Amino acid sequence: MKNMKKRNLQTLKGFRDFLPETMAVRNEVIKRLRVVFEKYGYDEVQTPTLEYQEVLLGKYGDEADRLVYTFEDKGKRKVGLKYDLTVPLARTMASNQNLPIPFKRYQIQPVFRADKPQKGRYREIYQCDIDIVGSSSPASDAEILAITSDSLNSLGFEKFEIRINSRNVLFGAMEKAKIPKDKWLSVAQSIDKLDKISKSDVISELTSKGLTKNMSENILEIVDGSKPDDNLNEIIALAKSLGVESLKFTPTLSRGLDYYTGAIFETVVTEPKIGSITGGGRYDKLLKDLGGPDLPAVGTTIGLDRVVDVITELELWKDLPKTASFVLVTIIDNNLEKSMEIAGKLRKSGINTEIYPDPNTKLDKQLKYADKKCVPWVIIVGDKEIGKNTVTLKNLKSRAQETLSLDKAVKKITS
Amino acid sequence: MKNMKKRNLQTLKGFRDFLPETMAVRNEVIKRLRVVFEKYGYDEVQTPTLEYQEVLLGKYGDEADRLVYTFEDKGKRKVGLKYDLTVPLARTMASNQNLPIPFKRYQIQPVFRADKPQKGRYREIYQCDIDIVGSSSPASDAEILAITSDSLNSLGFEKFEIRINSRNVLFGAMEKAKIPKDKWLSVAQSIDKLDKISKSDVISELTSKGLTKNMSENILEIVDGSKPDDNLNEIIALAKSLGVESLKFTPTLSRGLDYYTGAIFETVVTEPKIGSITGGGRYDKLLKDLGGPDLPAVGTTIGLDRVVDVITELELWKDLPKTASFVLVTIIDNNLEKSMEIAGKLRKSGINTEIYPDPNTKLDKQLKYADKKCVPWVIIVGDKEIGKNTVTLKNLKSRAQETLSLDKAVKKITS
Repeated sequence: MKNMKKRNLQTLKGFRDFLPETMAVRNEVIKRLRVVFEKYGYDEVQTPTLEYQEVLLGKYGDEADRLVYTFEDKGKRKVGLKYDLTVPLARTMASNQNLPIPFKRYQIQPVFRADKPQKGRYREIYQCDIDIVGSSSPASDAEILAITSDSLNSLGFEKFEIRINSRNVLFGAMEKAKIPKDKWLSVAQSIDKLDKISKSDVISELTSKGLTKNMSENILEIVDGSKPDDNLNEIIALAKSLGVESLKFTPTLSRGLDYYTGAIFETVVTEPKIGSITGGGRYDKLLKDLGGPDLPAVGTTIGLDRVVDVITELELWKDLPKTASFVLVTIIDNNLEKSMEIAGKLRKSGINTEIYPDPNTKLDKQLKYADKKCVPWVIIVGDKEIGKNTVTLKNLKSRAQETLSLDKAVKKITS
Repeated sequence: MKNMKKRNLQTLKGFRDFLPETMAVRNEVIKRLRVVFEKYGYDEVQTPTLEYQEVLLGKYGDEADRLVYTFEDKGKRKVGLKYDLTVPLARTMASNQNLPIPFKRYQIQPVFRADKPQKGRYREIYQCDIDIVGSSSPASDAEILAITSDSLNSLGFEKFEIRINSRNVLFGAMEKAKIPKDKWLSVAQSIDKLDKISKSDVISELTSKGLTKNMSENILEIVDGSKPDDNLNEIIALAKSLGVESLKFTPTLSRGLDYYTGAIFETVVTEPKIGSITGGGRYDKLLKDLGGPDLPAVGTTIGLDRVVDVITELELWKDLPKTASFVLVTIIDNNLEKSMEIAGKLRKSGINTEIYPDPNTKLDKQLKYADKKCVPWVIIVGDKEIGKNTVTLKNLKSRAQETLSLDKAVKKITS
């Protein structure tokens, strides 16, 4: 600690502190999601923050590689921060060959993106992935949809649409429209934008990608008239039997990543107005391509930061306590041990209770502390109260206060 | 995914996957600790994985700096992975000037050490810190001791000792023994070893540090005869009034870090035989020295990895379920939708239920899956059962099975 200079203490751009109020929302979101995932028999897994670059890079092309945080560690190993939770899943499956198959797991951890952060986009992102590895059954696709639907219901979102399509349906349309195979993914990505930009804008994007105007109009028409294939029909039927409503076959849905091999899905929440917060699909070849075992897989990602940000900004969970603390026991007239004794009794009654630790602090300052932290109740114990074997109980919302026995105060607080 | 070569997929040394069984222990540990921390009104905070090197380095000397993961990001910023949770606390206090003071927070996150990992030591470590910032009251020291004691009780550890000393007591002894001031910390670190090595070994260590043999014997005698000072006596009395037993004044206790300014403490768990798993103390000058606000603070760290490792290795929590899944509904005779319907009903009854998703799988293989995953119950629904409106319920531990109505099966499972 010698020669310590005054430092400029700030967070890196795109990184955030999560203070108690936000953590309360985030912990509640995670708690609710865990209940849903575990209801379906999925177990939690966590993987390291750092992995070998060999594991992380080359998965999504050079563009994505630029977004991975990479460096050499002190042992000259080429390492990086994990970019998503799918690559680590492949690595986990490869490193642990004795896992039960099908392997149903969920994972909730931060991932890292080295690109320039924009509003609402961060460099450290909390992702939440649910996947089932080792099953090619449409029942597994349907289960992921059911978990998605239950998750959004459990978060209290009132209106959402789960959009579903299949790479096979989309690529079938391409084949029918005689689009060159090497353009399929790129064309699909343009078609995906019909949700956001006009038809004519999509057509000019397609012609800029080398399609004739005729071809462009043709593919849009064919896609628009697509029907679900047998696999998709089965998934949809099974999902409905699992209670999934608001499922919508969306033939224009493409999603960017090229590793999907079957069904693809995303969720759009319209009330509250959040937009897309989940995305996923079937990726039967990815694990093997990544060097993992040759196992089919299907899963989805829930964008946890977006969910937490929206719930916080729109104040959707007004009743969620901003602090775990339920009662503040103040200290006046230097009765520190008495205050501690009372706090201990409240805790034994199951009430989260803190004491204001510093004697010789004006009561007003102690009340301001409770107000700032949003503690709902305050108990005041001074010489006057101790003499009568009572406490003064104050409700910080109504500002009402009364002097009563501790037992009665406990009853009032817990009622 | 073009030109994908078979990769060598392994974790970096010192980094680990946490599979479901370990995650179950870890989540249970964290859940119990959170209950304790929140019982005392402490709220959770999380801080970024990456910080500026300016924030991270120079806190604990060059030796420690070598242990910080540092690199240049793509924007040429000098950044690093957080090394502990105390430096980020100082940065958080500096970045968020409007926090309620005293600020009581807990933080449970991984930190990173770039040194060579040994058995039981990792490069990514989960730490759990509890601190109170902005209070110099002995009540706060006592509260940290009470939280420590309650935490260890809540984890089910049967015998432990909370050792307490004070830097002032230790340095008072040094002054009395006329030890040169620049040797105090180093001498204290040798004295701290009396717990592990013999008195004569400590004396030779002290003479190798430049003390005469006479001086060395003298300081050991003075330390041995030390008494708690007023501050320590008050902390001990208050901690006792908060119900802390097993508190032991330990005049040889020093702890390595030089930033402590008052009380220091650590916990040694003797049953089960774990050793030291918590350590902390009062650090009234550190936040300011780090560039943060000029606020006193006291807190402790709980070594979460060590706790989880020991509980896992000694199988202390035998009854803790190894999976969230409580029932596996099998699929035979291709009755996929019937199995899904039954699984749905079980979930509605609050039972975590998974289905085996792949039809055309031999029942034996499905049972082996349940065994491997340690799912306690299996429900078998084939044509025979469906015809009689029953299910076959099998307990995988006793291997007993019976055929009964679904309602009765639910009662049996939940009883």
